[in-house]
Amino acid sequence: MRKTNFVSNSDRILLNSVAYGSAADPTQTCSLSSDVYDPSGCDYVPEWVVRAGPRAEVYFDPEEVHAAVVTCGGLCPGINDVIRSLVNTLEVGYGVKKISGVRYGFKGFFSGDEFMPLNRKVVRNIHNIGGSALGSGRGGGDVEKIVESIVNNGINMVFVIGGNGTHAGANAISNECAKRGVKVSVVGVPKTIDNDILLLDKTFGFDTAVEEAQKAIQAAAIEAQSAYRGVGVVKLMGRQSGFIAMFATLANGQVDCCLIPEISWAAHGPNGVVEYVRNMLDAQGHAVVVLAEGAGQEFVSAGGTDAGGNPKLGDIGQWFCKQLKAEIKCDVKYIDPTYMVRGCVANAHDSIMCTVLGQNAVHGAFAGFTGISVGSVSAHTAFLPIPRMIERERLVDPDGRMWHRTLASTGQPDFF
Amino acid sequence: MRKTNFVSNSDRILLNSVAYGSAADPTQTCSLSSDVYDPSGCDYVPEWVVRAGPRAEVYFDPEEVHAAVVTCGGLCPGINDVIRSLVNTLEVGYGVKKISGVRYGFKGFFSGDEFMPLNRKVVRNIHNIGGSALGSGRGGGDVEKIVESIVNNGINMVFVIGGNGTHAGANAISNECAKRGVKVSVVGVPKTIDNDILLLDKTFGFDTAVEEAQKAIQAAAIEAQSAYRGVGVVKLMGRQSGFIAMFATLANGQVDCCLIPEISWAAHGPNGVVEYVRNMLDAQGHAVVVLAEGAGQEFVSAGGTDAGGNPKLGDIGQWFCKQLKAEIKCDVKYIDPTYMVRGCVANAHDSIMCTVLGQNAVHGAFAGFTGISVGSVSAHTAFLPIPRMIERERLVDPDGRMWHRTLASTGQPDFF
Amino acid sequence: MRKTNFVSNSDRILLNSVAYGSAADPTQTCSLSSDVYDPSGCDYVPEWVVRAGPRAEVYFDPEEVHAAVVTCGGLCPGINDVIRSLVNTLEVGYGVKKISGVRYGFKGFFSGDEFMPLNRKVVRNIHNIGGSALGSGRGGGDVEKIVESIVNNGINMVFVIGGNGTHAGANAISNECAKRGVKVSVVGVPKTIDNDILLLDKTFGFDTAVEEAQKAIQAAAIEAQSAYRGVGVVKLMGRQSGFIAMFATLANGQVDCCLIPEISWAAHGPNGVVEYVRNMLDAQGHAVVVLAEGAGQEFVSAGGTDAGGNPKLGDIGQWFCKQLKAEIKCDVKYIDPTYMVRGCVANAHDSIMCTVLGQNAVHGAFAGFTGISVGSVSAHTAFLPIPRMIERERLVDPDGRMWHRTLASTGQPDFF
Amino acid sequence: MRKTNFVSNSDRILLNSVAYGSAADPTQTCSLSSDVYDPSGCDYVPEWVVRAGPRAEVYFDPEEVHAAVVTCGGLCPGINDVIRSLVNTLEVGYGVKKISGVRYGFKGFFSGDEFMPLNRKVVRNIHNIGGSALGSGRGGGDVEKIVESIVNNGINMVFVIGGNGTHAGANAISNECAKRGVKVSVVGVPKTIDNDILLLDKTFGFDTAVEEAQKAIQAAAIEAQSAYRGVGVVKLMGRQSGFIAMFATLANGQVDCCLIPEISWAAHGPNGVVEYVRNMLDAQGHAVVVLAEGAGQEFVSAGGTDAGGNPKLGDIGQWFCKQLKAEIKCDVKYIDPTYMVRGCVANAHDSIMCTVLGQNAVHGAFAGFTGISVGSVSAHTAFLPIPRMIERERLVDPDGRMWHRTLASTGQPDFF
Repeated sequence: MRKTNFVSNSDRILLNSVAYGSAADPTQTCSLSSDVYDPSGCDYVPEWVVRAGPRAEVYFDPEEVHAAVVTCGGLCPGINDVIRSLVNTLEVGYGVKKISGVRYGFKGFFSGDEFMPLNRKVVRNIHNIGGSALGSGRGGGDVEKIVESIVNNGINMVFVIGGNGTHAGANAISNECAKRGVKVSVVGVPKTIDNDILLLDKTFGFDTAVEEAQKAIQAAAIEAQSAYRGVGVVKLMGRQSGFIAMFATLANGQVDCCLIPEISWAAHGPNGVVEYVRNMLDAQGHAVVVLAEGAGQEFVSAGGTDAGGNPKLGDIGQWFCKQLKAEIKCDVKYIDPTYMVRGCVANAHDSIMCTVLGQNAVHGAFAGFTGISVGSVSAHTAFLPIPRMIERERLVDPDGRMWHRTLASTGQPDFF
Repeated sequence: MRKTNFVSNSDRILLNSVAYGSAADPTQTCSLSSDVYDPSGCDYVPEWVVRAGPRAEVYFDPEEVHAAVVTCGGLCPGINDVIRSLVNTLEVGYGVKKISGVRYGFKGFFSGDEFMPLNRKVVRNIHNIGGSALGSGRGGGDVEKIVESIVNNGINMVFVIGGNGTHAGANAISNECAKRGVKVSVVGVPKTIDNDILLLDKTFGFDTAVEEAQKAIQAAAIEAQSAYRGVGVVKLMGRQSGFIAMFATLANGQVDCCLIPEISWAAHGPNGVVEYVRNMLDAQGHAVVVLAEGAGQEFVSAGGTDAGGNPKLGDIGQWFCKQLKAEIKCDVKYIDPTYMVRGCVANAHDSIMCTVLGQNAVHGAFAGFTGISVGSVSAHTAFLPIPRMIERERLVDPDGRMWHRTLASTGQPDFF
Repeated sequence: MRKTNFVSNSDRILLNSVAYGSAADPTQTCSLSSDVYDPSGCDYVPEWVVRAGPRAEVYFDPEEVHAAVVTCGGLCPGINDVIRSLVNTLEVGYGVKKISGVRYGFKGFFSGDEFMPLNRKVVRNIHNIGGSALGSGRGGGDVEKIVESIVNNGINMVFVIGGNGTHAGANAISNECAKRGVKVSVVGVPKTIDNDILLLDKTFGFDTAVEEAQKAIQAAAIEAQSAYRGVGVVKLMGRQSGFIAMFATLANGQVDCCLIPEISWAAHGPNGVVEYVRNMLDAQGHAVVVLAEGAGQEFVSAGGTDAGGNPKLGDIGQWFCKQLKAEIKCDVKYIDPTYMVRGCVANAHDSIMCTVLGQNAVHGAFAGFTGISVGSVSAHTAFLPIPRMIERERLVDPDGRMWHRTLASTGQPDFF
Repeated sequence: MRKTNFVSNSDRILLNSVAYGSAADPTQTCSLSSDVYDPSGCDYVPEWVVRAGPRAEVYFDPEEVHAAVVTCGGLCPGINDVIRSLVNTLEVGYGVKKISGVRYGFKGFFSGDEFMPLNRKVVRNIHNIGGSALGSGRGGGDVEKIVESIVNNGINMVFVIGGNGTHAGANAISNECAKRGVKVSVVGVPKTIDNDILLLDKTFGFDTAVEEAQKAIQAAAIEAQSAYRGVGVVKLMGRQSGFIAMFATLANGQVDCCLIPEISWAAHGPNGVVEYVRNMLDAQGHAVVVLAEGAGQEFVSAGGTDAGGNPKLGDIGQWFCKQLKAEIKCDVKYIDPTYMVRGCVANAHDSIMCTVLGQNAVHGAFAGFTGISVGSVSAHTAFLPIPRMIERERLVDPDGRMWHRTLASTGQPDFF
């Protein structure tokens, strides 16, 4: 192992560290002696990304850096930890003196709201409360106006904390700057409470969110068990991806049914969820159902998109409770803990992850990268080209091990 | 990606997913276009391990299985989650009817204490309290007596939850059974609050422990800041490895000095820690010091080993406080949160990790593996040959990125 | 002070320990020397209640006791602590051998659901989870059927955990038993998350509920501050009484407006709450509003009563958010944490309070009291005649010190 | 009930609201009809104190007030809440413009450390972290020097947050000012994590401390139950008074033995605690012991006093563990959570209590009182003359109901 403070530009991280074996040989010897480890014969093609970290040579003179930080979209535990880490690394690690906080998302570049001057002192304690110290907001991704603001304000580093849509915006800003010949590093930090970013092991705040979501399930289970024919229904975040619902279900262990956007289900009919709940009530006296907000949208969606360009979701939680009450004798208790989950303070794990991501975003900008994001890949931190990362949302794999574990935990059948 | 409920015997996971670049080419282009990703030229040799998961063919008839579960060594958050997952997977997943809990560690095989009959009902709520429902204990690794007990009780699966030493014992039991021609699967689940297991991303309970340890540092920081020339000293777990001290220091962000076993330091003299603390008191009025229990043993060790064969540690925390009081004007507050950290209930992240490890340990046993352990490798779950895993303890790399981040956070110099 | 294990039947507790001074003498000397303490001239008439505690003589032979425990109405932190204390005191303290848990409220006496046999072992760990281990339910207060069940089952002690309505039922049961000449002690333990019981310092679970409710306000404040013109709206429990809203507002300290059932308010118009929120948004960029569920019912109530005989409440939270969105430019985040507050585990304070109440309920029954309840009065535990206690609901005093403190904290004006 | 914003100077609160009945009539009728409530015949003499609250007439012109705040002695949850409430009430409630924070206790009046200027903005978030934002310290009670500083700095209100000893100092300062004819209001706020203040229902921070202390007991119980013949020993605060030990023991419910300073006990011999622990180990396999730090000082005290004039305590926890290890076969786990309990953030209950106390301390000063303290009496807030309050420490009553409940919970015998 090489031992220096710096990371070589040619260090690489493997994106894919699983080699799926040949189906033709399912009963190969199970010996574990290391000489037989040979993935040849597997359809395995390694894909590499650049290892994150500080470089021996930097591309910017810290004296001339004007860095901007912007947070877009909904809240997620750890945003302030990332801001704090960006500012500390810029100021203490590299000696940057001018750092501006953009208010309430992309539109803060041109809304007329003044930038918030950021320095080590300002950010000292922001990680002790949730939310975004800068304010966060959806939409506002007017690339022309943003780049004009960047140029007019002499900004040469832009750190963008947001999800897939925000990263698309960051990439467009990076491209537009390049087109205009403006030397600006645009670096993303993936923020999504849904954990729906491709390639990454996990996004920051996800662990904290699962912990809090699990508490809501626990409350629903208590209500269900304490009522006569009680049903606890919990709606969790997850527009296209059911990761929070799946992980919180697994962590809690008392859920009878978990419904996620990736898998369609019938509410009514002999194989529908309502009938299943009736059976659980008859068998054990109570039932607990977890829904991701994006599940069953075919029943409730009215179409349209929000300011961030995302499809507007119908309220599947309320709809589902109504079906239950209409069809079966039960006492429904409905919990939507969304805003109590998003605004939490990051736990120690996420706090460290945020610190590491913030540091590496700055390292990436000083190394001269632009149009990149930072994330945890195969348990290491990597720089990732944004276009590759946002090809599509990451979804729960209905044939994967984790979903099968969830089904084993709930005991639920297919609903169709 | 292959899509079945089962994992192929030829699936593999890469142990090492970082390719360290040639030092000769430190300024290679920083382009991120994927066609230039090429680790050739790096001194990179991939090492593979077997992917964990259920197999299409099983090696035992569930009707004939008598499984034993034993927990060895000190407490760690999540032990009961692992026991619960083992029992649930054995009973519900495979239909095993006879499961025995061995009391108070290895010696429970032959101490005369009756086994505790385990089933789904017994373990239903054990994960809601910390500790080990079976009782845990050090020592007792008498392989002859254990194998005799295994044979006499008709046990053919042994699940061993413990650290490096315990895994060495598990491997010896596996070998002795093989030597005697007794068909027994011995499978380990690595349990170490110190996170000192080679090859693994992380061990279960570590995240929870860091969270709790960080709270002790927070208390020490409060005491230090509220007192005139206050010094908060916290001793954390970590016999040979300073992972908890390092991560809790990073998570807290208010620590002025973190001392770990991997790095030697002087207490006295102009470059010693005591002088550094004096300087911090003069400069900022207070100081916070975190020590791993194994740090600075050259100052306090009296030699000898404990029942588990580990070197007996001297109390570096008390010793260090004494040096401070003797040499500088200060108000020292000392916290040893060890037993408040070990006995915690696992957080959601660790609870899920424990569930996954327990399931896979059972899958491994039914697949006919023995002398293996299960763990998270490159963010996937793998079966690992015990001898490879326990070649040595995993240590904090003094030249690694994480330790450098810690130094950046504390601002501490070298102490010698 | 008398020193024995037993409490004398003639021990008394003062209900009212404040003597309000003569308005004619507002500037009386402020000397504190004890000789001038003289409440004469005040319109003060002391009212006494019986001190709770074990009596030297008991009215029942423990061998012949069949005790029943029933929990009615909604959940509240600490119910299981009370059940546990009742059972432990009956079994361990007095040697009672037959204790029955009535399922899902009063109707469990005659619904055909079997009683749950209770003993020390069954209740050992029930306080570690929230809810009611017996199940709780509204309604079912059919005195005839209940008394028949009491007689048929040979029950001679009934412990009723519930609110004002439930206590009215308990009293009716007690009277009916007396009328029939059946020797039964009916003893209530006041359970109301709204803290709306007359005479009492505080009811069990209230502190825990305020703690949790305050977390919801904190989340709302985070959301409000992180959004552009963000408004956080939190609906808390409180049908007729705004105690939780008031105390959680005080504990949080970031609330701009607290609306409770005791005080009417205009939503619209120049002095309405909506206009006030607009002004707060203009002035500070965000606003936090807390509503008790019973506040502003004149805007939303549709009339009717629920199974427990309580008026059905309209959803003031949703209605208020709709008014905000219709009239002012803002980003509203609405939190209804009700079911996450009710199902919590009691904190240490409430746990001790529940233990004390449960013990004294049993002491009261063995002393031969019936138609009484137990509660904390002037910081001591007393037996209270139910009719006196349920004369009306306890309400927040709009002219009292605590509400004035709340107004000082929020800075809100009168809204009309 | 009188309804104004102000409290009349002649409002009074009863200190004692229990009338102990005649021993001669222990079997008096247990009827609860209110006409028989008559405490005559009881040896009951009511004692009244002045009700706290804002007065219609104030004794100081806010423009001319220079208020000082000082925190003395050890930490306790809620100190910063009190400071914040004092400052907010002074500035917002009365319009005071000059408020000084005295650093590190009484000696900060003359140590040369500059006062910390306090205003609403400075204290906004201090309640979100534990400790004292001013720094706290023992000793320094040099009345001459303090009064000189008061005079020289033009201070006319002094708010002293501290325990019995600190209140003695505050009273001496008040008297010395009176003697010199200097118009200064000296008002105390009782701060003692031991809850050892006479007359008061409870002191601030106590509930939070019990909650945290209970967690340490829980950890000890887990360690004890998970080890072979495991003994968990927890040392809690409580120099002369065992309130924390008693309440945390009651809240936890798993303690086998609770030792407090008020009750002497033998360690050795057939009726000693060590033998009792041996019996518990033989009977149930584990044991949990809670000691207050002041318990059993006759075994360990070396004499002498600390800077605050309190007797130096020997370490009874370590001593007791040594006795256990020497005499019986057991595995002892010792927890001293002191500094993790003292530095906690106040829970919602304590936070509200601190707010109320801080407000009333300011009301008291503006009303012209000096040499008083504020506290909760019979569930109302009162002004108390310091000399009456510090006549002696409040102790656990070995014949009281609460201690008898504790004995019932642990099942422990007398140890002598």
